[in-house]
Order: sequence, then structure tokens, then C-alpha cells
Amino acid sequence: MPTGLKTILDNTASAIAGNPSIAAARFAAACELVGVHEVDVRVNNQLIKADQPPALGGSDAGPKPVEIALAALGSCQAMTYRIWSEKLGIRFDKITVDVHGDIDVQGILGLANAVRPGFGDVSVRVRVNGPEPQERYEELKNAVDRHCPVLDVFTAPVPVTTSISANTTSEQQGVTQ
Amino acid sequence: MPTGLKTILDNTASAIAGNPSIAAARFAAACELVGVHEVDVRVNNQLIKADQPPALGGSDAGPKPVEIALAALGSCQAMTYRIWSEKLGIRFDKITVDVHGDIDVQGILGLANAVRPGFGDVSVRVRVNGPEPQERYEELKNAVDRHCPVLDVFTAPVPVTTSISANTTSEQQGVTQ
Repeated sequence: MPTGLKTILDNTASAIAGNPSIAAARFAAACELVGVHEVDVRVNNQLIKADQPPALGGSDAGPKPVEIALAALGSCQAMTYRIWSEKLGIRFDKITVDVHGDIDVQGILGLANAVRPGFGDVSVRVRVNGPEPQERYEELKNAVDRHCPVLDVFTAPVPVTTSISANTTSEQQGVTQ
Repeated sequence: MPTGLKTILDNTASAIAGNPSIAAARFAAACELVGVHEVDVRVNNQLIKADQPPALGGSDAGPKPVEIALAALGSCQAMTYRIWSEKLGIRFDKITVDVHGDIDVQGILGLANAVRPGFGDVSVRVRVNGPEPQERYEELKNAVDRHCPVLDVFTAPVPVTTSISANTTSEQQGVTQ
């Protein structure tokens, strides 16, 4: 069990109890299309590359966005296991999370109106090695699935506002405003 | 406009029309917790690192999972603009997508039952430069938002099955089965 993590979590909880407004956090991702499909994404000072394979006109410079979404889900599950294992005192030695998701690409391409563009089905398989009895790992799983942020993104609707602002050189610009 | 992308998309559509079963695609992400919070995620042959900052006990080896989720959304929006600009014949020179998401971390930590663990609110701001009149970019946005896979993950519930399999060294293992 990592030294000090329980203390960090307890201190965070105490600080929030004293002033709940500090629990509000904002996260950001700045994306630019730099190739046919290639996208540079900056999060904090880190870069994530996204792309499509050559068969779709891309250059395979990074994973596909839907794969990145599954990566977010699997990594969030793993970290939420870490956090809740500390909170519940359930030890483990190793944890892996395998995520699979099925998409019918007719939805993305607008070839079938009844087909949603995203995942029709997703499975998350967690494997844990450790010294606790089986039922404690089931208890841990139940706590994790109630508190995992990215699982919540997948399973419950998130209010999303989209907007576009166009810097157009069209001569029709003045006419259409 | 990228040479050949329209042809690739038209050929894909024709192939699917001839045999819709080829539109079924499966995607995967294999995750392993390799540090306190650090997770190695493998998608195809590519590695994504996820982590938390030192203030939460992590080592900042990569972005947080919730940031990776926003990266998936922004990059998916950008690529869906590319695909639908080809399908609709709406040219653009440059596109950026800025995504922001708000989380009350009381939800993750189980400090307030009424607070969801994931994003309470997300905004997607697209900026496009190009030669088309304003209303054509609005038309493009409407098509993109109906067909973007990761936007669908955020805005509509995805059926997700989670399971855990424990390899436990506990002596109680036999008793509890």
C-alpha cells in the first residue's frame, strides 16, 4: 500500500469539509487538427496525439479518439481502485483493467439513422491479485463503480454545450450576418 | 482538402452498403497500474500514460484520466469535422477545439452523496478558419454533433458491464466460494 496516500486523502477530505468550494475543479484539453485526421491535444503541459490508420486516410500518429476514450475509462477505473482501496483498507498487489468497446461505424458515417455514432456496448474486466478474501474485492468493486468519474461519463448523460466560431474569408460573410 | 479522403469515405460507404456486417468494429484498451496512480494503457501498439499530480500522491507521468476523456472528446470532434466537411463539401483551412469540463471532486471521494463523480458540465468551443459562408459552418457543426462518437459517449448513456476476477492468497478463499 503506497506510503502516505491514505494521509493525503484524509487531509484532502478534511480540507474540503472545512471549505467545500475548493472541491470545484476545472479540466481542459486544447486540440488542433494538424494533419488529415492527426490531432495534437494539449492537457496541462502534456501532449496526446490522436489519429486514424492509413486505411481511413490517417497516418497512425496516435490512437483513435474512441480508443482514447476507452483508455480514459480503464485508467480511471485503475486509479479509483487505488483510491478506494486506501479508503476501505482493502490491500492489493497488482491490478489490470481490460476495456473493450463495440461500434457500428455506420453511425459515424451517417449510413444508418437508427445506429448511434458511439459505443453500442462496453465491457470492463478488472483482474486483481492480493491477500484479501474474494468478497472484499467485490466490496471494493462496488465502491469503485459508484465513484469512478469516467465510468460516470460513459453511463450517465453529461450536459455538453458545443459552439462554433468561424473566421471566414467568404464574401458572403457580411450578407449572412 | 486532403487528396483522396473523399474517395476513401465513398469506397467505405459502398463496401458497407454491400455488406453491413463489416461496419462492426471492436476497440480495446489494456491498462495496468504501474505506480501509486500511474497507469500504462496500451491501445494497438501505442502507449498512453495516465497519472495524478504529486499533490494527490502521483508522479505526473501523464495526464489525469478525466483530462484524457476530454482529449478523446476534442480530438473526436476535430476528426468528425474533417470527415463531415468532406461528405458535405464544406472547405476549411484550420480547426481548433477547446474543451473544458467541471468536476466537484466530492463525488469521486464519496464526500457528498448528491454529487456525481464525473463532469457536472462540459463545453466544446470550435474555431474554424475557411472560405465558406458562416451558415455552412453551422450546417457542418450540426452534422458533426449528430455523428461524433465520443460526443455520443458523453451525452447519451452507454451500456457498460464491469466485472472483477480476484486471484487471492487469502486463506478464506475456499470458504467464501
